[in-house]
Amino acid sequence: MNLSKTLTWAVSALVMLPLVASANVNIHEAPSRPKNMIIMVGDGMGPAYTSAYRYYQNNPDTEEIEQTVFDRLLVGMASTYPARQSGYVTDSAASATALATGVKTYNGAISVDINKRPLTSIMQMAKQRGMAIGVAVTSQVNHATPAAYLAHNESRRNYEEIAKSYLTADADVILGGGQKYFSEALLEQFKAKGYQHIDDFSQLDSITKGKTLGLFADVQLPWVIDQQDSTQLSLLTQKALDLLSQNEQGFVLLVEGSLIDWAGHNNDIATAMGEMHGFANAIEVVEQFVRANPDTLMVVTADHNTGGLSIGANGEYAWDTSLLQGIKASPAALAEQAIAVDDWQALVNQTLGFDVTTEELQRLSNARMQGKSALETSLKQLIDSRSFTGWTTSGHTGGDVQVFAAGPAADLFKGNQDNTDIAEKMMSLLPRSQ
Amino acid sequence: MNLSKTLTWAVSALVMLPLVASANVNIHEAPSRPKNMIIMVGDGMGPAYTSAYRYYQNNPDTEEIEQTVFDRLLVGMASTYPARQSGYVTDSAASATALATGVKTYNGAISVDINKRPLTSIMQMAKQRGMAIGVAVTSQVNHATPAAYLAHNESRRNYEEIAKSYLTADADVILGGGQKYFSEALLEQFKAKGYQHIDDFSQLDSITKGKTLGLFADVQLPWVIDQQDSTQLSLLTQKALDLLSQNEQGFVLLVEGSLIDWAGHNNDIATAMGEMHGFANAIEVVEQFVRANPDTLMVVTADHNTGGLSIGANGEYAWDTSLLQGIKASPAALAEQAIAVDDWQALVNQTLGFDVTTEELQRLSNARMQGKSALETSLKQLIDSRSFTGWTTSGHTGGDVQVFAAGPAADLFKGNQDNTDIAEKMMSLLPRSQ
Repeated sequence: MNLSKTLTWAVSALVMLPLVASANVNIHEAPSRPKNMIIMVGDGMGPAYTSAYRYYQNNPDTEEIEQTVFDRLLVGMASTYPARQSGYVTDSAASATALATGVKTYNGAISVDINKRPLTSIMQMAKQRGMAIGVAVTSQVNHATPAAYLAHNESRRNYEEIAKSYLTADADVILGGGQKYFSEALLEQFKAKGYQHIDDFSQLDSITKGKTLGLFADVQLPWVIDQQDSTQLSLLTQKALDLLSQNEQGFVLLVEGSLIDWAGHNNDIATAMGEMHGFANAIEVVEQFVRANPDTLMVVTADHNTGGLSIGANGEYAWDTSLLQGIKASPAALAEQAIAVDDWQALVNQTLGFDVTTEELQRLSNARMQGKSALETSLKQLIDSRSFTGWTTSGHTGGDVQVFAAGPAADLFKGNQDNTDIAEKMMSLLPRSQ
Repeated sequence: MNLSKTLTWAVSALVMLPLVASANVNIHEAPSRPKNMIIMVGDGMGPAYTSAYRYYQNNPDTEEIEQTVFDRLLVGMASTYPARQSGYVTDSAASATALATGVKTYNGAISVDINKRPLTSIMQMAKQRGMAIGVAVTSQVNHATPAAYLAHNESRRNYEEIAKSYLTADADVILGGGQKYFSEALLEQFKAKGYQHIDDFSQLDSITKGKTLGLFADVQLPWVIDQQDSTQLSLLTQKALDLLSQNEQGFVLLVEGSLIDWAGHNNDIATAMGEMHGFANAIEVVEQFVRANPDTLMVVTADHNTGGLSIGANGEYAWDTSLLQGIKASPAALAEQAIAVDDWQALVNQTLGFDVTTEELQRLSNARMQGKSALETSLKQLIDSRSFTGWTTSGHTGGDVQVFAAGPAADLFKGNQDNTDIAEKMMSLLPRSQ
């Protein structure tokens, strides 16, 4: 290698490095503007979830603790409090509105302000600039987070209205669950607008271009742990990237690991870790896309913490990941099966993957006599107690969440910020209005 | 500039860069090495504590939520797990050893490895380089965190041995609590080594130079909330800076907000917020020093999470900071007083600063009949329930902690890292050995 070539390489690597490595930007240069932006939301994924996921994923056969995609991409944190009238603890609607529009609102609001007036979302701004837009989520597509990006409504509970309003959202890709909110008549209207409608993962391959409404479940997608398949969100994300990246003007995509939050509300650690794995896989798909397309910015965050999860509980300085790794079904699915069979104890032992003591079996047996729901609760308590997992609430908690980023201008998101700042920064990176 | 010199510079900058540029530094300039380094540890101060402190400190008379010193200084996060044999949840000894030496060890170890062999601490390395060293803490000075910086012992519980070993640590400044571990005979030995010994805050002004052993309490310093004075750690920190900065070769100082952890172990939110305020004030003292002395690096972190604290609990999407702000004494102090007087109900109402319901009073009354400890527990439960504060454990939890930094090379600490990396980075910034 000759000297001047080495020098050129070294200097250009030096200049490129800050942008590509997602952190060391020269603040004296304007950050380069990305062509495409992907915002990924781990619903409810507070800091305890990403730490827990690292240990859950840890390979016990190696000396070191392996890094996760979250460790690679961490750049900062964000506060999540809603508009003052809703106190310090946000719901998913207010936080999604903050992330989509840059404005604080009341809990329950879908991209409307505290006076219920519509707020302009980054998706609307992107559309005005000729960009493609889309969402890929594991909840119903009209759930709070995607809804805040594509709709305006005074209440997240108005699922039917929100689904109908998607007719005018002009999204290029809508992928997730929620068949029950899209009647045949409504689907016909989407088709009349040029949408292809699919309802099975096997149909994904057949879609190679054009507007797409893919609804793969009645409401939310099945739990990763029950499918023993963590690729569903990855497949939707990859398809969204394939379709949206055909637009020469660039695109904005929302990807949500929606069900991390649902598992958190259920205080269900085994199921939550499965959902974390599905979301982490989707982030890796996007990370690969960003590597192949250095004009693309990815920002990953959470909308809030769910459940008050802690690694260790009840005075124990421990967290048993090998126990959690061995659990083969969600407590909900296991309870349903165990109610229906006589030899439920063998089923429970086999599915949990650890030996249940006589005393624990007695507790499960008592719960089983009270029905499926009681058995599910008892299974979760057993898993928590044996894995040393703690929870404080069936709702949300108000601690800051992490922010992860890579690609051009990733450095904008470092350090402490508010969730509204994330939207404002992303909006500032859109191409100038035409 | 000739080509080969440029090449050398460019290549070495390229190698150094990701490791060294400060948060807002021009990356085309070579990074500077700090003369002085201050490591500040909020014991037990997981992310929920700094978020909670922001809301606790919020001025309700202004529209915005005011930023705290933590918000200003956030650069990254750190994992805290101990050596494999101790699982995923660290104690303060193993984490302090990681922060002081860069090596993972077993829970309970004071700067010895898993085979109980002494590990070289950053303080020892600094001393070898002619720098001044010191500690300023709110626990006894021979408690786990300062001990890991100044001593080596197979067990944190060997308080007497650790105190004695400080005779050979050659620290310039030792400030905190712990009189009970320093006999008159031991104090005489310290004096023979040239130490000035003080035991009252009023004596701080009289110390203007020289080695100082200041022990201001029998064990730990009193709670901030009971003193209604949040300046104790700030005063110790300022004095340590005044004394250590007289050394021309620079200094390394450890400051610990030790009692955040103790309040967390007690699941005592009101007291924890007081300790957070005391620690935040000390950070601001150091921040001012760094502004006035741009050759000084400050790094702030926590050693682990304590208590599984959550903002919001039991399904409530709320956290009542105004209630917490009004509490005028620790539940421990209030219980002690309320046991001793007849008109305890008025005292409780007045000290808590909110109206206690008849039902709540009845519960407190029942607890009071069982004694001080039961009354204290009942008071804490009342405060938790009314403020919507959650806890999962009387021990530690394994989530990542935040890292805050300012000054030269602050950027080294951004993004995700392990607690051992913090020590290694700081060690790499020491002047080269002479």
